[in-house]
Amino acid sequence: MEIKVLKDILSANEQIAERNRQLLDSKNVFAVNLMSSPGAGKTSLILETIKRLEGEIKVGVIEGDISSSIDAEVIGKEGVPVLQINTGGECHLDANMTYNALSNVPLQDIELLLIENVGNLICPAEFVLGEHKKVLISSIPEGDDKPFKYPLMFHKADAVLINKIDLLPYLKFDTETFSQAIKGINEKVEIFQISCATGQGIEKWVSWLLVQMGRR
Amino acid sequence: MEIKVLKDILSANEQIAERNRQLLDSKNVFAVNLMSSPGAGKTSLILETIKRLEGEIKVGVIEGDISSSIDAEVIGKEGVPVLQINTGGECHLDANMTYNALSNVPLQDIELLLIENVGNLICPAEFVLGEHKKVLISSIPEGDDKPFKYPLMFHKADAVLINKIDLLPYLKFDTETFSQAIKGINEKVEIFQISCATGQGIEKWVSWLLVQMGRR
Repeated sequence: MEIKVLKDILSANEQIAERNRQLLDSKNVFAVNLMSSPGAGKTSLILETIKRLEGEIKVGVIEGDISSSIDAEVIGKEGVPVLQINTGGECHLDANMTYNALSNVPLQDIELLLIENVGNLICPAEFVLGEHKKVLISSIPEGDDKPFKYPLMFHKADAVLINKIDLLPYLKFDTETFSQAIKGINEKVEIFQISCATGQGIEKWVSWLLVQMGRR
Repeated sequence: MEIKVLKDILSANEQIAERNRQLLDSKNVFAVNLMSSPGAGKTSLILETIKRLEGEIKVGVIEGDISSSIDAEVIGKEGVPVLQINTGGECHLDANMTYNALSNVPLQDIELLLIENVGNLICPAEFVLGEHKKVLISSIPEGDDKPFKYPLMFHKADAVLINKIDLLPYLKFDTETFSQAIKGINEKVEIFQISCATGQGIEKWVSWLLVQMGRR
């Protein structure tokens, strides 16, 4: 019965997500669901992406957190529309939370919506929000065994960004092993090595994003 | 109704946890529930702790993961009893999984049971397993804002280990701000700065653990 309840919840979630997607499409807004462990660099990536797209693409942001509005305040300084969702304990965003947030985002003024999910490598993978692409940020300090331990998240991602590669000299992390493990779970995934601290690799990520948006 | 279901689940979990605790007490086994984000260093801490306690305290380990037995294999090389729980998608251990695991751990041969929870800073905080102490590992690369974003986990911890302090020179992280934020949520918590890579601070953590066990 517990499984039945979960199936009903996921099915209802998908229906609302489909409605979100239709709303976004009707406004020509491309949405990306950014997921990662706590502290892997979601907010830093959003900041770097906004900077690279300045003057080219109008960006809006939804910030998902259990509590606090720390990230929304940081993003707000960039002068882009940003909305904070506090889940109040929930370990992931869902389509309904996103639906409620969308009515408070000026969709007519943006072309790209970056949705920062709750920092969690497990539960967010199960809930589609209506996004066009799922992007997973996995950082060097987390270790290169993560695809084996959290396979669903790596399976669902359209792109994996390996962040904090500036820390490679100080940590044991085999990017080749890691990339092969991801490809074993998800053959079509795009993998980028980046550092939000140094800016390395951000250009390639942004180019890929623009291609997905049909803007290159 | 969803809230009612959750309350029932948590209440049932507490009853089983209480049974686990009684079983552990009857065997004079002290149990620690180790929680953290993915890759913060739970397995490394277990390895360091086993090494420091060799010849003094007999240790057993339960490894919790969604899938894979990577960590159990690493721990097994230390020659201590280790049992892998694969949750099959579940984002946390619960008392029932722990109960089933306990019947496969040679409790009569150990004095300390280290339980590695699933890597997740959210859901494991809600499920007591029957442990005597909850220990949270939070690592420098995750950033010093985590207590504000994941308050329940920091509230529930008996001790917080700030791991990977050897990376402090390469990252922005204010240990003073971080410690004050934790104390604001959880006045009585013990905080240790450690590095499983260099061994720094492990001695103090192990001393604290021995005091909790009534062995010092």
